[in-house]
Amino acid sequence: MKVEEKLEELGLVLPEPAQTPPGLELPFAWVRVRGDRAYVSGHIPLNPDGSVAGPLGKVGAEVSEEQGYEAARLVALSMLGDLKRELGDLDRVGAWLRVFGMVNSAPGFDRQPGVINGFSDLILDLYGPEAGDHARSAVGMAELPLGAPVEIEAEVELTGS
Amino acid sequence: MKVEEKLEELGLVLPEPAQTPPGLELPFAWVRVRGDRAYVSGHIPLNPDGSVAGPLGKVGAEVSEEQGYEAARLVALSMLGDLKRELGDLDRVGAWLRVFGMVNSAPGFDRQPGVINGFSDLILDLYGPEAGDHARSAVGMAELPLGAPVEIEAEVELTGS
Amino acid sequence: MKVEEKLEELGLVLPEPAQTPPGLELPFAWVRVRGDRAYVSGHIPLNPDGSVAGPLGKVGAEVSEEQGYEAARLVALSMLGDLKRELGDLDRVGAWLRVFGMVNSAPGFDRQPGVINGFSDLILDLYGPEAGDHARSAVGMAELPLGAPVEIEAEVELTGS
Repeated sequence: MKVEEKLEELGLVLPEPAQTPPGLELPFAWVRVRGDRAYVSGHIPLNPDGSVAGPLGKVGAEVSEEQGYEAARLVALSMLGDLKRELGDLDRVGAWLRVFGMVNSAPGFDRQPGVINGFSDLILDLYGPEAGDHARSAVGMAELPLGAPVEIEAEVELTGS
Repeated sequence: MKVEEKLEELGLVLPEPAQTPPGLELPFAWVRVRGDRAYVSGHIPLNPDGSVAGPLGKVGAEVSEEQGYEAARLVALSMLGDLKRELGDLDRVGAWLRVFGMVNSAPGFDRQPGVINGFSDLILDLYGPEAGDHARSAVGMAELPLGAPVEIEAEVELTGS
Repeated sequence: MKVEEKLEELGLVLPEPAQTPPGLELPFAWVRVRGDRAYVSGHIPLNPDGSVAGPLGKVGAEVSEEQGYEAARLVALSMLGDLKRELGDLDRVGAWLRVFGMVNSAPGFDRQPGVINGFSDLILDLYGPEAGDHARSAVGMAELPLGAPVEIEAEVELTGS
């Protein structure tokens, strides 16, 4: 089954492009394609209309680990939205390679892997164990843009380019 | 126009190689070239003589957002200095791919993208919208070496290799 | 001399696979190979049996800089253990490319490069100055999984694939 059919089956919607906050320019590409590689910029959780999705703040304080997991799942959808707009077809992602998962962490919160699993679990559900597999880090940041609880960047391999 | 002519036109000078602080060895490459890729180590702001450029400290506390923007611009010059020493000609960078922008962030400072724009704006000015485009993250670190306010690493594609 | 002979000569042992803490699933690859690249997930220091190696905590507080250096050296062994299991032969790593060194940093600790040298020094000892050279960042994180003092991810080039 194609990735987009699986998304539909799961009732998941890819968000609109990120709305840039007033007064901020973002002069770079959400997805940078060269040859058979796509480099994916750091993405944060978005609502379907492209606004930043709450709850905001640090995981382990304002945001629970479970809410962090959900936020990481939303980051996967944000990223897939930009990959679809750039590539036309999500099945052009032939292999996930590298996932760098950043958790806005309250002092003493050290369960970043459990949070970033929200991203990995969805990517593996959608792409399966071969294309969806990836190297990963899940680490604790001091702060993230706009107070987002999670930001993730990635590198993927493209097919049929 | 070539990148180095644009630098001259803008009155910008590439710094000397980074001076290593006493008692610290840095046993790695500032730029690692393999095939058509150059992996660029984390760079911090330098003065023209290669000493660490101030102001030092956290953006949002000792360093203002505007000073952080200037620091990120200096990081671009540091990186271009090492790319020129390694490649001989800055036009051998055919495409910027990935920029990972790290901001030494005071508690509550969440405007990392506005800081790292100092890097992106200059790279886009010098390389133009096609070669200069890049995927990017801009995130908040707890600490950076030597108290630098900004550190950036990158990956670029080379031509004519 | 082959890398594994050098390890033996130095009396170094590669640890068993990381033991996952109870209640945590890690649904990703420690090493993701595609073509001539291996993407290596963030690794932390391990004991020979695969349990997390202490001391835990922040470098500059609970963990000294010297202990941080030793922890980074253990991270190199963790990573080599997974590379050997994935590739069969550590000499298949033809070139180290990118090393991203993350130090769990106490407030005010800014000597991350001295810590990550524990990793770089060992890799350069084992692989020599050409294959072992690498681009590197060494930066300060707010928190790391399980309270590890150091986590490092990497990208390497493979030969004979």
